Amino acid sequence: MRPDLLDRVLSLLPARSKRPELQLLFDMLRDYPQRGGKGIRSELLLASARAHGVTPGSERWEGALWLAAALEMFQNWVLIHDDIEDDSEERRGRPALHRLYGVPLAINAGDALHAYMWGAVWRAGVPGGMEEFLAMIHRTAEGQHLDLAWVEHREWNLTEADYLEMVRLKTAHYTVVVPLRLGALAAGIAPQDAFTPAGLALGAAFQIRDDVLNLAGDPLKYGKEIGGDLLEGKRTLIVLHWLARAPEEQRRVFLEQMRRNRPDKDPAAIAEIHRWLLESGSVRYAQDYADAQAREGLELLEEALRSAPDQEAARELQGGVRELATREA
Amino acid sequence: MRPDLLDRVLSLLPARSKRPELQLLFDMLRDYPQRGGKGIRSELLLASARAHGVTPGSERWEGALWLAAALEMFQNWVLIHDDIEDDSEERRGRPALHRLYGVPLAINAGDALHAYMWGAVWRAGVPGGMEEFLAMIHRTAEGQHLDLAWVEHREWNLTEADYLEMVRLKTAHYTVVVPLRLGALAAGIAPQDAFTPAGLALGAAFQIRDDVLNLAGDPLKYGKEIGGDLLEGKRTLIVLHWLARAPEEQRRVFLEQMRRNRPDKDPAAIAEIHRWLLESGSVRYAQDYADAQAREGLELLEEALRSAPDQEAARELQGGVRELATREA
Repeated sequence: MRPDLLDRVLSLLPARSKRPELQLLFDMLRDYPQRGGKGIRSELLLASARAHGVTPGSERWEGALWLAAALEMFQNWVLIHDDIEDDSEERRGRPALHRLYGVPLAINAGDALHAYMWGAVWRAGVPGGMEEFLAMIHRTAEGQHLDLAWVEHREWNLTEADYLEMVRLKTAHYTVVVPLRLGALAAGIAPQDAFTPAGLALGAAFQIRDDVLNLAGDPLKYGKEIGGDLLEGKRTLIVLHWLARAPEEQRRVFLEQMRRNRPDKDPAAIAEIHRWLLESGSVRYAQDYADAQAREGLELLEEALRSAPDQEAARELQGGVRELATREA
Repeated sequence: MRPDLLDRVLSLLPARSKRPELQLLFDMLRDYPQRGGKGIRSELLLASARAHGVTPGSERWEGALWLAAALEMFQNWVLIHDDIEDDSEERRGRPALHRLYGVPLAINAGDALHAYMWGAVWRAGVPGGMEEFLAMIHRTAEGQHLDLAWVEHREWNLTEADYLEMVRLKTAHYTVVVPLRLGALAAGIAPQDAFTPAGLALGAAFQIRDDVLNLAGDPLKYGKEIGGDLLEGKRTLIVLHWLARAPEEQRRVFLEQMRRNRPDKDPAAIAEIHRWLLESGSVRYAQDYADAQAREGLELLEEALRSAPDQEAARELQGGVRELATREA
């Protein structure tokens, strides 16, 4: 995220304690935000605020900045807990927090950061901001639950529609829908209804692109382990599309590996499945799907922003979301 | 908690989903609140509100009830995460949530319940309520971090003062200090400064009593596994007092067991340590300490409530806290 926003996030978090144990907690709270996340969501929120007529330096801009800080704090506490839930190894090129400090301390640090996030929302003082964050967390937790429940219950009897429902709940709300809406709220303007379908399509494009990068991305650009989704048994559009068409023997090998917990998976079999997926047309299919969702979302967004107060900022906002489905990292 | 307060908590939580996976999430959110917690903290809050002149049925009473519901929701999401952090087996006589549904789903359900709690705080609309909950969660997370960090780092080189600092942060704020203060805020009255030292002493008494019950309580009355604190390697006043005086061989056996993770501990050795603790004077020492803290806290509280608008309610409030150090469950 941009340096001044990072400073704002850090200004809300405790920095120094005389007790070394509490110093560790404070360092844990400040760890993920300082690992250089891209700040996609806060940028979208601030671009939306400008498109809605909020001028940098104004009092409303301060409100938008606190909401943007809160959104980054949301992203960071969710990542701490996600990494535990998925037992991920890495985050932004370094070991995940629970791999550095153990699961109990990391769960608790995520909870503490969650509470500090509400401090930022409260500080923003933007009417409708609290309700927006409440709805956002409820939807995100529902989507995360769907994803985790499928892993927990070894559920592979899923359609592409199931996947899309999960992704809309888990990713699209907090990545696109809510940043667009918060920008309007920061301007004191009721968010357009069309932001929801636009954001759901653009958010799905964003997540499907992430799934593609996880299998076929450049390890030097992509901050997570390539193939990590396979080890974690994640449902993706790619895998569901491939699974419906794979030769019986490949299907059998895949499902047999997916019945195992992560540490019991056979690395050679996973590497072979990874090759099958890359050689199938399913990565291409998913990327095309993401491109189509991005186009659809962008059209809806352009229409919704036609009457926005600041047209130059509206075009910048559209430029920002245009890359969601084609980014490299 | 009282049935009408449970209804209020449940009214804030989603009940029905057509998707069976989401139905599971909603059932998980409603599980711990429905297991019949005693509602000590919400009762304290409501008693404090009445002592400060809030009359049942009034608009301010509605605010107090939403804050009380939020406090119970806080307790419940914290317990979900605590049970994972401590790998507890039971909660209120049933398996802990993560033992029923797995760690990932339980972490996520705790997060969702945390967010719903803020919905209740927001709904209360009591000036100062948001700030009070923010400070409460920060202190509780710091105390929880101290406790967990000692377990994680096998730290037994601790004084009774260390234990008391941890307990004040982890338990006393949310159990006594904050309920007393929220009752005043619900009445539109600035909380008395003396509520803090009073609540810290009474909260310490409450937790030390809990430690005593965990070792020496009646299994039929106490909702958690007797001796669970030993298996979880918890620092308690009892153990720290005993450790400073135990024969060298008992000390050695104890520290050797405490270096092991829970599943690797030897049940026979733990049972023997349990007996040593019961036979030592340390349980008595801790109970006396709890009684003294309770007396001190109660004196401060009586003084602070001398000018409270409703003296009859103030006496009921004092009666409520009087039992914190001597309860059986």
